[in-house]
Amino acid sequence: MEIELKENERIDDLEYKGLRIIQNREWFCFGIDSILLTNFAKDSKRGSKILDLGTGTGIISILISKKVENAKVTAIEIQDEVAEMAQRSVKLNNLEENIQIINEDIKNISEKIGQAKFDVVITNPPYKKKETGIVNENNVKMVSRHEITANLEDFIKVASEQLKERGTFYMINRPERIIDIFEYLRKYKLEPKEIQFIYPSKEKSPNGILVKAVKNGGDFLKVREPLIIYNEDSTYTNEVLKIYGKV
Amino acid sequence: MEIELKENERIDDLEYKGLRIIQNREWFCFGIDSILLTNFAKDSKRGSKILDLGTGTGIISILISKKVENAKVTAIEIQDEVAEMAQRSVKLNNLEENIQIINEDIKNISEKIGQAKFDVVITNPPYKKKETGIVNENNVKMVSRHEITANLEDFIKVASEQLKERGTFYMINRPERIIDIFEYLRKYKLEPKEIQFIYPSKEKSPNGILVKAVKNGGDFLKVREPLIIYNEDSTYTNEVLKIYGKV
Repeated sequence: MEIELKENERIDDLEYKGLRIIQNREWFCFGIDSILLTNFAKDSKRGSKILDLGTGTGIISILISKKVENAKVTAIEIQDEVAEMAQRSVKLNNLEENIQIINEDIKNISEKIGQAKFDVVITNPPYKKKETGIVNENNVKMVSRHEITANLEDFIKVASEQLKERGTFYMINRPERIIDIFEYLRKYKLEPKEIQFIYPSKEKSPNGILVKAVKNGGDFLKVREPLIIYNEDSTYTNEVLKIYGKV
Repeated sequence: MEIELKENERIDDLEYKGLRIIQNREWFCFGIDSILLTNFAKDSKRGSKILDLGTGTGIISILISKKVENAKVTAIEIQDEVAEMAQRSVKLNNLEENIQIINEDIKNISEKIGQAKFDVVITNPPYKKKETGIVNENNVKMVSRHEITANLEDFIKVASEQLKERGTFYMINRPERIIDIFEYLRKYKLEPKEIQFIYPSKEKSPNGILVKAVKNGGDFLKVREPLIIYNEDSTYTNEVLKIYGKV
């Protein structure tokens, strides 16, 4: 497979079923977030129609397409050059049949393709509020990390519009956004069903939260066991090794 | 000290600074909850005026009076016979100068004593919704465990009424109530500032949540490190031993 690499790009091994991804070292690179999020969503039904909102490098779409058998994935990315790179990663993994990349603002998608088209919506949205953080980053990094073009409420609103009745929403975000997350989920009729906190180690505050919600679901929330990433000796915990398929 | 014990009553050692408590084995007996909650609130200022809503056996008032130097504690309990037993536990520990037990419905307290009287409100309210759980318990147990006479919203509303500006609210509750907790806190101007999940062990879902909120506080929430109770060998974790003052 001949795949063109541009300046500052590299191909990284996802360490999962031989998948690889093109990343630009000047932009936002994937971390363990996408691995944890797609693992959290892995019990989605065979053949699900899955929408990935704000896919960036395409990593979530690429991983979920291998975790959910026969998944039909649509990925939305607003930034032209990032969407184009994601498209090359899809090709690199021979996933053109499974993943469609659409270069569009998520806020326009319901108008463009109609509503209630998906069984599953999955997203790793920008974490940071527009006005916070370092502002001298390059533009691509800014849009990937900050709520520049769409904020948390937009992501949740679009997810709700795009889900079929009883469809499932999966998101990873920051624990300090939990109050807003619950508020917006309820506002847009996505009932929170399961959350799990991601703790870097068992002595630390969580730096991530996984959220599962169901469109017009009943109101019982389960909080899952802690997901602890590192042991005291800085090795991965068994739980993480299991997620990576290494134990 | 001569303290009368009634039928089914016993004196239990709180394993903290020699404190003891009278409990009735037919009623609701204290667990680790009260220890964890009072530890969570232990950094309250010296001399704080503290309100304990729904004190039951009086355990929270008795513990907090030893954790916060010079605290002036007022404890509200609706059930006559429980309030009377709590009063005897106060006497048993020679804390009559520090703790006042008021036998009253929490919903009447603002009318009775006025508003904005306290620096700190602390509560371990009934966990269970009115219509849930076993209904053939005795009446005292029912009121202690279920939202019979006051529900979560009542506890939060009264807490807000009784707190001075920037006063602090501490509560322990069940993780599955977290969405309601945030909703009511915001409704009554108690801004959630810190939460901590209590996990029985690191493989299990949490069965408790500690919540700290500040009246008219700013909107940044910190999620604390996990509070894990038992090691894999069923011994207490170091964190819990520290709370008990045993390491």
